[in-house]
Amino acid sequence: MRGAPALGATGAFGVALAARTETNARGMRAAARRIASARPTAVNLAGGVARALAAWDHGGAAAALDEAKEIAAEDEAANRALGAFGAELVTSDAKILTHCNTGSLATTRYGTALGVVRAASEAGKRPFVWVDETRPVLQGARLTAWELDRLGIDGELVVDAMAGALMRAGAVDLVIVGADRIAANGDVANKIGTYGLAVLAGQHRIPFVVAAPSSTVDLETPTGDTIPVELRSGHEVTHVGGVAIAPHRFPALNQAFDVTPARLITAIVTEVGVLRRPYKAALRRAVRQAPATLAALVQNRVI
Amino acid sequence: MRGAPALGATGAFGVALAARTETNARGMRAAARRIASARPTAVNLAGGVARALAAWDHGGAAAALDEAKEIAAEDEAANRALGAFGAELVTSDAKILTHCNTGSLATTRYGTALGVVRAASEAGKRPFVWVDETRPVLQGARLTAWELDRLGIDGELVVDAMAGALMRAGAVDLVIVGADRIAANGDVANKIGTYGLAVLAGQHRIPFVVAAPSSTVDLETPTGDTIPVELRSGHEVTHVGGVAIAPHRFPALNQAFDVTPARLITAIVTEVGVLRRPYKAALRRAVRQAPATLAALVQNRVI
Repeated sequence: MRGAPALGATGAFGVALAARTETNARGMRAAARRIASARPTAVNLAGGVARALAAWDHGGAAAALDEAKEIAAEDEAANRALGAFGAELVTSDAKILTHCNTGSLATTRYGTALGVVRAASEAGKRPFVWVDETRPVLQGARLTAWELDRLGIDGELVVDAMAGALMRAGAVDLVIVGADRIAANGDVANKIGTYGLAVLAGQHRIPFVVAAPSSTVDLETPTGDTIPVELRSGHEVTHVGGVAIAPHRFPALNQAFDVTPARLITAIVTEVGVLRRPYKAALRRAVRQAPATLAALVQNRVI
Repeated sequence: MRGAPALGATGAFGVALAARTETNARGMRAAARRIASARPTAVNLAGGVARALAAWDHGGAAAALDEAKEIAAEDEAANRALGAFGAELVTSDAKILTHCNTGSLATTRYGTALGVVRAASEAGKRPFVWVDETRPVLQGARLTAWELDRLGIDGELVVDAMAGALMRAGAVDLVIVGADRIAANGDVANKIGTYGLAVLAGQHRIPFVVAAPSSTVDLETPTGDTIPVELRSGHEVTHVGGVAIAPHRFPALNQAFDVTPARLITAIVTEVGVLRRPYKAALRRAVRQAPATLAALVQNRVI
């Protein structure tokens, strides 16, 4: 399982599953800790686990399962809402560069950054997507390309290192990415390579937009410097599909995420609306507003 | 065959080979054109072909072969000389980021950017190399990692998109790359991704150095805008080791090189010395000085 929003619902469903075998609070807390620590960077995972555990405290296994379903419903509703807000930032024939996978395979159903592209397409615009392959795990090549194909949205695959040349050639109107955690000051942790894209976009005066539900915002983390960044096995870099692409035992550093400072981010699109600098105040307002917004969105949803 | 300097000698040897079967000038010129057009971006190829053809014009097959051997000897001597000049820019424990392969596998024998690292190591310094894997063809993972391993120089492999995070973390002291063509104004065509590295290095105030023999300089190309950039098959992006990593028939754009403007380049290291801005005058001087320098280097070489 991957994708920050999907991890939130999945963590909650994990707690609901644990509730089928664990009967006491100590066992449930241990299970919750185990689930929450599976991936350190996406704050949605810990958030989903905490909500399901709190529901279990009050109403047992059935309440935990209901809460997990509620989180999933909220995520889909939030994605559709932020997609609609974000689509307003997309011009009619926009060439959009995106990184990693942020579509239905990374969320409960609709998508965040790719949800914005999808909403623009559904609104009759004709976006074109440059798909970063996203090494080392190739989520762009394997997942985003597949989703675009399925949605009938035009796109072309490029190696991650091609972003600069595309921007310099005037072939990128907008960069949209998702987020694994948004700190209180607007710094964003996301897939490795995001920071470099933000610097390049800034140099070329191309808007750099982050699309994420408010569940990705972590007001307890003051800045990006304190977001824990997952280090993964170098094997993901040295091997592709099980085949070695580097000399035997040559070391590889595989940092799964990087942090983009708030000053490089043009806008953060959430289900509450499009946030602009200064992000600290905007994010606090969005998080405060989110429960009522989500309740209304879930209630009014048409699926 | 790959690597701009290696292409120069290889093109000349190709002409010498053609001279074994072609007997008239028309056939030789056609063969030379065919060889020179195999790769459009590296100017060394056309340069090597032209020199061997001119030698054939004056002295036939034997002269063409002698000229090819001379080009190879000059390339090795130039690489060793520029390595020594470049090593002076490398501090004792420098962490160096490099892209693509610029070692003995890309040149006649010694290397350009990797030659600088090698010369620093031979001078008793202890450089550490961040090896960009260099998608799509993975020259960093497959060739540079292998060369470093063999030379006993420390390094770690990273995905290309990790450069920004490394620089932001203060883990890069210097970026060194090679060149496929240097225009008269100092703009440099090199492996796709080089431009993005130059922008990132500039933002982090990290020196960005290009290492190349003067045979890579093309005074006939005024700026980078007119350097022909090779487009290669999307198959290189969508397949790794023959295995598909993207959905069937999803399009991929595969531009093999990009252009880095001179203003982002801290220094150009050649066999004549370390060139600094303004590059236009410095490159003209270097090209004028090169034949005498090369003749002396080849004569004094110790192999």
